[in-house]
Amino acid sequence: MDGDISTILGSCPISLQDSTEVLLGHGSGGKLTTDLVEGLFLPAFRNPYLEKLDDQAVLEVNGARLAFTTDSFVVNPIFFPGGDIGRLAVNGTVNDIAMSGARPLYLSAAFILEEGLLVAELQRIVHSMQEACETAGVILVTGDTKVVNRGSGDKVFINTSGVGWLEHTGVISADQVRPGDTVILSGTIADHGMAVMSKREGLEFETEILSDTAPLNALVQVMLEASPNIHCLRDPTRGGLATTLNEIARRSHVGVVLDEKRIPIREDVKGACEILGIDPLYVANAGKLIAIVGGNDAKKVLERMRGHQHGQEAQIIGEVVGDHPRMVVMRTGIGGTRIVDMMLGEQLPRIC
Amino acid sequence: MDGDISTILGSCPISLQDSTEVLLGHGSGGKLTTDLVEGLFLPAFRNPYLEKLDDQAVLEVNGARLAFTTDSFVVNPIFFPGGDIGRLAVNGTVNDIAMSGARPLYLSAAFILEEGLLVAELQRIVHSMQEACETAGVILVTGDTKVVNRGSGDKVFINTSGVGWLEHTGVISADQVRPGDTVILSGTIADHGMAVMSKREGLEFETEILSDTAPLNALVQVMLEASPNIHCLRDPTRGGLATTLNEIARRSHVGVVLDEKRIPIREDVKGACEILGIDPLYVANAGKLIAIVGGNDAKKVLERMRGHQHGQEAQIIGEVVGDHPRMVVMRTGIGGTRIVDMMLGEQLPRIC
Repeated sequence: MDGDISTILGSCPISLQDSTEVLLGHGSGGKLTTDLVEGLFLPAFRNPYLEKLDDQAVLEVNGARLAFTTDSFVVNPIFFPGGDIGRLAVNGTVNDIAMSGARPLYLSAAFILEEGLLVAELQRIVHSMQEACETAGVILVTGDTKVVNRGSGDKVFINTSGVGWLEHTGVISADQVRPGDTVILSGTIADHGMAVMSKREGLEFETEILSDTAPLNALVQVMLEASPNIHCLRDPTRGGLATTLNEIARRSHVGVVLDEKRIPIREDVKGACEILGIDPLYVANAGKLIAIVGGNDAKKVLERMRGHQHGQEAQIIGEVVGDHPRMVVMRTGIGGTRIVDMMLGEQLPRIC
Repeated sequence: MDGDISTILGSCPISLQDSTEVLLGHGSGGKLTTDLVEGLFLPAFRNPYLEKLDDQAVLEVNGARLAFTTDSFVVNPIFFPGGDIGRLAVNGTVNDIAMSGARPLYLSAAFILEEGLLVAELQRIVHSMQEACETAGVILVTGDTKVVNRGSGDKVFINTSGVGWLEHTGVISADQVRPGDTVILSGTIADHGMAVMSKREGLEFETEILSDTAPLNALVQVMLEASPNIHCLRDPTRGGLATTLNEIARRSHVGVVLDEKRIPIREDVKGACEILGIDPLYVANAGKLIAIVGGNDAKKVLERMRGHQHGQEAQIIGEVVGDHPRMVVMRTGIGGTRIVDMMLGEQLPRIC
């Protein structure tokens, strides 16, 4: 039975062949995005770097091991509680580099501006990017600006790419996870997505929900000092915790069992999700990481995380199992067990 | 007098303060783009890498010298005679890396798709990118896909960033140019811009004008083998030959004297420019380079260029002088001399 289910979950892309047009869901980090990647990009460009499907490529140039990553940001609105598109773009790329265990060093920024964007808004965004670079300890070394005519863009899109240096010799990747490993989450889920959503929809809750956008490279460094047995690091952005764990389960051909009551979530975020009928497991985060740790080092790593500004609410949320490979299940609060699938299409468009 | 003129040309950005909104011209690679870069981006992010204002940053990571660059492509239409947005994006980033003298190795690709784009069109573009990667000898190692709702984008925008390796120890940069140096151009000007323009405007000329989009890294390698005295390499894309030479003159505080009759241009391209009232000196190229060469090595370099597929029509087009620093002048066909200023605003929007 498990086999059957995982075959269905991991089956060949069907929606790509079915779609003649790109849908919003193709960009949401869920199953449709996977179809696009596995059905179109991967077959065209197939190479060992891309095949790893990590958030960054690890390369070697003249003996130096580098991490290299890219992300475009199209979040709407461009300013939201707790951040803006610029801060999100810097932190997002810093984090994608850090998830390989590399030290982020250099960033690029490429702007696509819509004609009519207020120069004052661009200035605010650029100022915020500069602050974020300083906080993360990275340098923005190269850039590009394009302008598109009114109605052909939406205020501003930003691409940040980045290069980091891998000092350690280990491999931290979604394909390194083994049964017996422990799943740690660095803090509360769904803050970023709900902050953007509440701003976009003009919703007011009792307390203002803030995006958790933050650079996680310093947190990763203390974790690496604590243990050489960190097998995988991922920041659960688009598609949320559920989709990211599904990707890891598929890549390492393992099962994941989560414990619902251990997953940290702020009461107000939970309330907002309930009101809107949104499952917080699928909501984007912008300053959280999942660490999958082996060799009984989980408690040691957890302790170091809790001593760090961005890991104070870290929790062990589950374990990796050999049963039901490629599948994530969750022990629910009321004692049952449910399958946590990848997100299919679009829950919250343009969240990052 | 020269001093006066160069003070005016190099004066502080005024248009940025005057504009409250981003204009199309801010993205065209001319004076308005310079205002945005020098008036907003540079003050915010100021660091020695960015200050060089080259098309790429040269970095050191654990002893390896790297070139790192980024470019977003928003060309309209996405398919044009001689190429498409995908091929342009790969070649553009390959060339920006190569212009430092580095060997391009790894590329990223980030797509911003508009909801409703035909999957078949995306497939054509991706196929074309894969071909371009193979031709240039680079590997696409990491990527990203976002989708924006209908009317918030325009079919597809592509960001390509890239990393290359600098084997040689020299510095090739816009600030390395000296009086007495020779200016070489690798071939005919204005092909790319006029190809896109003719397609966009539905113009028909006697012969079809094709974009010159091409990877120039192999050409650069043979040039570097021919001489250690290549001081500057630039591919004159947005803003064309005139704007790129002005940037170099400003960065190195030198004058440039061009010889109009030596600048190669195809007859049909020249005719199209005349019909449309466009100055080909300001039209974007996508497979040409300017080399500024010292130490009497120009002829040697020229000879090697002409033996290469992408340099067959290379010409010595001018010289670098100590007079009129920061200014480009041209000896015209009829024996006069005229100042060739930077492009001010927008001649051909969304050309790359």
